[in-house]
Amino acid sequence: MTDYIQAHARAIEEAAARIAPHIRRTPTLATDLDPDLLLKPECFQVTGSFKPRGAFNAILRLAARDPTPKGVITASSGNHAQAVALAARAAGLRAVILIPEGANPAKVAATRALGAEVITDGISFENRDQRLAEEVEARGLALVHPYDDWDVIHGQGTAARELLEDRPDIGLIATPVGGGGLLSGTALAAKAQSEQIQVIGVEPANADDAYRSLQLRVRQRLPQAPDTIADGVRTLSIGERNFEVLVENRTIDAIVTVTETEIEEALLTAWLRLKLALEPTGALPLAAYLAGKLPKLLKPAPGRGPAALILTGGNFDPAAVARLLASYG
Amino acid sequence: MTDYIQAHARAIEEAAARIAPHIRRTPTLATDLDPDLLLKPECFQVTGSFKPRGAFNAILRLAARDPTPKGVITASSGNHAQAVALAARAAGLRAVILIPEGANPAKVAATRALGAEVITDGISFENRDQRLAEEVEARGLALVHPYDDWDVIHGQGTAARELLEDRPDIGLIATPVGGGGLLSGTALAAKAQSEQIQVIGVEPANADDAYRSLQLRVRQRLPQAPDTIADGVRTLSIGERNFEVLVENRTIDAIVTVTETEIEEALLTAWLRLKLALEPTGALPLAAYLAGKLPKLLKPAPGRGPAALILTGGNFDPAAVARLLASYG
Repeated sequence: MTDYIQAHARAIEEAAARIAPHIRRTPTLATDLDPDLLLKPECFQVTGSFKPRGAFNAILRLAARDPTPKGVITASSGNHAQAVALAARAAGLRAVILIPEGANPAKVAATRALGAEVITDGISFENRDQRLAEEVEARGLALVHPYDDWDVIHGQGTAARELLEDRPDIGLIATPVGGGGLLSGTALAAKAQSEQIQVIGVEPANADDAYRSLQLRVRQRLPQAPDTIADGVRTLSIGERNFEVLVENRTIDAIVTVTETEIEEALLTAWLRLKLALEPTGALPLAAYLAGKLPKLLKPAPGRGPAALILTGGNFDPAAVARLLASYG
Repeated sequence: MTDYIQAHARAIEEAAARIAPHIRRTPTLATDLDPDLLLKPECFQVTGSFKPRGAFNAILRLAARDPTPKGVITASSGNHAQAVALAARAAGLRAVILIPEGANPAKVAATRALGAEVITDGISFENRDQRLAEEVEARGLALVHPYDDWDVIHGQGTAARELLEDRPDIGLIATPVGGGGLLSGTALAAKAQSEQIQVIGVEPANADDAYRSLQLRVRQRLPQAPDTIADGVRTLSIGERNFEVLVENRTIDAIVTVTETEIEEALLTAWLRLKLALEPTGALPLAAYLAGKLPKLLKPAPGRGPAALILTGGNFDPAAVARLLASYG
């Protein structure tokens, strides 16, 4: 283990202790699909996604600063928004959230219900980083970036840490990758335990910037918001810190892409066979598994333990899932 | 604790050890709904329902007999069928299952896929007990009754036993009630731990035979198969052994009925907020909770622990779920 990984693993351990009173330790589930497969269903996390792990870690650290900031601000298409709203409320801080127009309405409503001020007018996936910088400047609020933030990365790493506490023999962990916060935290937690644990990121083929960034070893950016039902990974590129962890420090083994059809099939499998009411983004690692794209898992070596999929959330659009189930039935 | 309860609790303990290699220990989940509520999601059990607990206990005992029976037979509208098929296959016994015409097709297909011989022609909810007796006689197979069987009751009691191992402070456990197998096992396991633990059965108002049986203290029978979306509890009456446990031995505190609308609302809550892809029967205890029909829970007394709901299964009809989600969206 390098000093780099060791230092980050220590920060993940501290994050786990810091956020423990506020988040849920989700279970490690076995399934009827495959005895060598384990699931980490973060749909059962507070607010229905893994995002509070990072948000609480970042905001509890901000709230402990002297002087405390006037409030926090972020930009998010949904799940990070709810997480920041909840963590800010718990910490007694004001929260302002920029959500792109056209985002999942259920996620917007849930964020407002948690007491945050939500701004959607004129926010797009393309301009939101710039708008965020302007608002940070104008309002003097502390930024809680959805993925390009060390505290957020360390918080997200606690999910993999729990998996490895439950099953130290895990041989592979797959997670969705959008901005790279969860994948970075997962890679740091896993490689700190053993360099033999394979870490795989899964993204839609329509949003393959992380795949290309790893291939070219230069950070790639999508020209526009990608067309994918996996609305949680519509970010245009992974963050600087995430690129540093994942690519420059070679902590991941592969990025795998899945088609929209593969995501839909995984969503149906999640609902019908796993009994998990996932959102499309949450089903990305399952899509890679079902499509036979986690190759090492398919040929388990002697002594290699099970594969674990971090299923990131369950905040789905009811109409979209209804259409999908109706097409199956 | 009476000798009666103590003897049955010992049998539940033995069942837990017997079935452990074959079933899954489902987790105890907390939710965003209520900090005093816990869930036992048996939708994550092998085959997607709690039924293998009882089926494995009964069939492993049959398979250990000398001479072993030629095979096993049962009648079931679905989940018990899959459980018996799986347990028989594991024990190396032939399985014959009578399933009423018009049952959930997904459950019939799953039962056949597990290698069982399925008979549906001419089987109705009204005649299936008689047809079962005829087939037992004609074929010389051992009957694994879905609920009126001590081994099945003891197997089903292992779910409550796990809940109480996880959280010994639980103050109330609610389960669906159809034939009364799960409710009987739950009541025996709970009252063996403490007479203070409230045990509540929940059934559709359209299938209120258990409610009336408890009120009148005489076993009541529905005149025909009830009209309810909760297809797992369409039995016409609770069994003799279940009546003995629940009513004669006064092991339950109440039977609560819920309307079809309340069941549908609970299903939507399960999918949208709890992220559990439950079938209607599995949502019965949640329906009672959401409708404010678990009264002791609503006024927690000092020192009274959380309420736990056993959510029995997730083998839903995709078309029915699609319709309900579309009506919400």
